[in-house]
Amino acid sequence: MTKKEIILTGDRPTGPLHLGHYVGSLANRVKLQNEYDQFVMLADLQALTDHYEQSKQVHDNTLQVALDYLAVGIDPNKSTIFIQSMIPEIPELTAYYMNLVTLNRVTRNPTVKTEIKQKKFGESVPFGFVAYPISQAADITAFKGSLVPVGEDQLPMIEQTNEIVRSFNRIYNCNVLVEAKALIPKVSRLVGTDGKAKMSKSLGNAIYLSDSADEIKKKVMNMFTDPDHIRVEDPGKIEGNTVFMYLDVFDSDVQEIQKLKDHYQKGGLGDVKLKQRLIQVLDDFIRPIRERREEFAKDPQEVMNILKKGTITAQAVAAQTLQEVKQAMGLIYF
Amino acid sequence: MTKKEIILTGDRPTGPLHLGHYVGSLANRVKLQNEYDQFVMLADLQALTDHYEQSKQVHDNTLQVALDYLAVGIDPNKSTIFIQSMIPEIPELTAYYMNLVTLNRVTRNPTVKTEIKQKKFGESVPFGFVAYPISQAADITAFKGSLVPVGEDQLPMIEQTNEIVRSFNRIYNCNVLVEAKALIPKVSRLVGTDGKAKMSKSLGNAIYLSDSADEIKKKVMNMFTDPDHIRVEDPGKIEGNTVFMYLDVFDSDVQEIQKLKDHYQKGGLGDVKLKQRLIQVLDDFIRPIRERREEFAKDPQEVMNILKKGTITAQAVAAQTLQEVKQAMGLIYF
Repeated sequence: MTKKEIILTGDRPTGPLHLGHYVGSLANRVKLQNEYDQFVMLADLQALTDHYEQSKQVHDNTLQVALDYLAVGIDPNKSTIFIQSMIPEIPELTAYYMNLVTLNRVTRNPTVKTEIKQKKFGESVPFGFVAYPISQAADITAFKGSLVPVGEDQLPMIEQTNEIVRSFNRIYNCNVLVEAKALIPKVSRLVGTDGKAKMSKSLGNAIYLSDSADEIKKKVMNMFTDPDHIRVEDPGKIEGNTVFMYLDVFDSDVQEIQKLKDHYQKGGLGDVKLKQRLIQVLDDFIRPIRERREEFAKDPQEVMNILKKGTITAQAVAAQTLQEVKQAMGLIYF
Repeated sequence: MTKKEIILTGDRPTGPLHLGHYVGSLANRVKLQNEYDQFVMLADLQALTDHYEQSKQVHDNTLQVALDYLAVGIDPNKSTIFIQSMIPEIPELTAYYMNLVTLNRVTRNPTVKTEIKQKKFGESVPFGFVAYPISQAADITAFKGSLVPVGEDQLPMIEQTNEIVRSFNRIYNCNVLVEAKALIPKVSRLVGTDGKAKMSKSLGNAIYLSDSADEIKKKVMNMFTDPDHIRVEDPGKIEGNTVFMYLDVFDSDVQEIQKLKDHYQKGGLGDVKLKQRLIQVLDDFIRPIRERREEFAKDPQEVMNILKKGTITAQAVAAQTLQEVKQAMGLIYF
C-alpha cells in the first residue's frame, strides 16, 4: 500500500459556517477524507491575528465550527480534526521559519496586501497579521501537507510556503520539509443572499448550516432576485437571480428547474412561488445537518473528546516534524 | 518572607564569552543571584535571527557559553540556567503578543533600526530579526521578570516589552503580565584590545574567559597603548591607553597602578614592562575561571544535567504563565 497524500485544510473560527463554506470546501472535505490523510485545523491562532480583541468569541466559535464539521459529515475516524492553538510546535516552527523570509518578501505578499486593504487596518496592521503567511507555512509543513485545498486568491500563500520549504531544505541540506500543491476546487463560490459576490458573515448575507427553518424562510424571502420583475406576469431574468443560482446548486431536479426558468423568463411565475420551492429545498438540505448538529451539541463532552483525540494525533505528527527540523539544524541538546 | 524580585538575563550564544561580558554582565549576575530569583537564558533562538545559517555553531556555542557561566560562578543552585529553544512557551507567547504590536511600531524600534544598519542586511532583513523585540517580551514575561539588566542602548527593548504588557493586561482585563524595569549596570564597557569602543568577537579584539596563558600573552603584547610612545624614555599618555584601562579594572593594587601611571607620563617606563604586569594580572584573573571551565568540560554529562534541570524548572514557570495568558484570553479548551 502506498502512503496516502496528506491534506491540510481548515477554517479561521470567526463565526459559524454557512452554505458558502459547504459549497466551497466542506462538501469537498467530506469526499477527500476517503482518499487522503486529511488534517482539518480549527485555526484559532490565525483568527486572533485580526480578532485578538475577541479572543473569547474565537474560543466559542472554535467549538461551533467543530459542531459544523461533525454535522456535515467530516468524520473524526477519517479526518484528524484539531485545534491550532493546542499545537505548540506550530509557533515553534514559525519562529524558525521567520528567519528564512525577509520583511520585504512578507509585506509584498499579494494576498496579504489585498487583505490589509480590505480589513482597513490603516497604519495599524498587527505584526501577527503580517506574519500569518509564515505561520501558515508552519501549519502546512508541520503535517507534511502536500495538498492544500485553496481558492485561486490563496495561491501566493502556497508559494510562500514552498519558498520556505525550499530555503529550509537548501540551507540545512536536508529533505525534511515537503512542498505543497494547491488543490483548487471546481465549484464556484456561492453568492450571498443579497446577490453580492461572496457569502460572508461580515456582509450579513449568509445562511448558516445551523439556521432554523424560520431563519431559512426569512432569509430566502428577502433574497435578491430580479429587481425589474415587479408583477407576476412580467418576464423575469435568470442571470444574476440569486434564487435560481441557489436552486442550481441545491435542487437536484434539473428538469423541473429548467421548466421553472423558462416559465420565469416568459412571465407568469412569481418570486414568492420560487422562493417557497427554495425554502423547501434548503430546509431539506440543512435539516439533517442541523439535526446532527443538535445531536452532537447535546453531548459537549463527546465533542471535546473528539477534539482532544484529534489534537493529540495532530500534535504527535507535528512533534515528529519539529524534531526532524531541529535535527537538520543541529539543535538537539537533550 | 517577601517574594524575591525576578531577573531575566542571558546571552545570544554567538561565540564564547570574553572579558567584556565579564565586566558588563557576568560579574553582576554572580552578585545578583544571591539577592534575586535569577533566570539566565542561553538565547539560541534569538541568536538564530541573524545566524540562522550557522545553526550548528549556535548549538555548540550554547554549550560553550554554559561552561563560561559555570566557570565564572553562576551557580545552578542559585540561578536557573536554561536553553531558550527548549521552552516552547516562548514562541507560543510570541505568537499571541505579535497581534498586540503594529508592524510600524516594530520597524520603528530605535534599537532594531540601529542594529539593522550595523548588520548590513540591506534589503534582506530577516522577518525573525525584526520580530525579536516581541520574542524578547515573551522571554521576559514568561518568567514574570521584573528586573532586566541591560545597557542604555537596550532601553527601547524594555519599553517595547512594557507596551505589550500594558496592552495585554488592558485588552484582556487582567494583571497576568508584569512590567519590567531596566537594571542599568554601573560598570562601563570594556574596550577591545585594539582600543576600540567595544570588545566583540566580530571585531577580533576580545580576550576570552577560556583563553590560554599563551593567548592572553599574545593578545596583551599586541594591545593598543599610546601610538606616540615610541622610545622607553618618551613620556606616555594614560588616556586612551588600553593597557592602563585594563589595569584599572583588573589590578587591585590601586596605589601601585598610580605610581606606574606617574612614571609612564614622565617617561622611562616601557610598554613591554607594563604589558608583562597586565599579562600576569589577567592570567591570575582568568586562570581559575579557565581551570573551573576545564573541570566542567571534563564531565559534559554533568553540564547537560545542569542545563536539563534548569530548563525543566524554567519551563514549568513559563507553562504556568502561558496557562494564565490563555485563561485571560478565554482560550482554554481542555
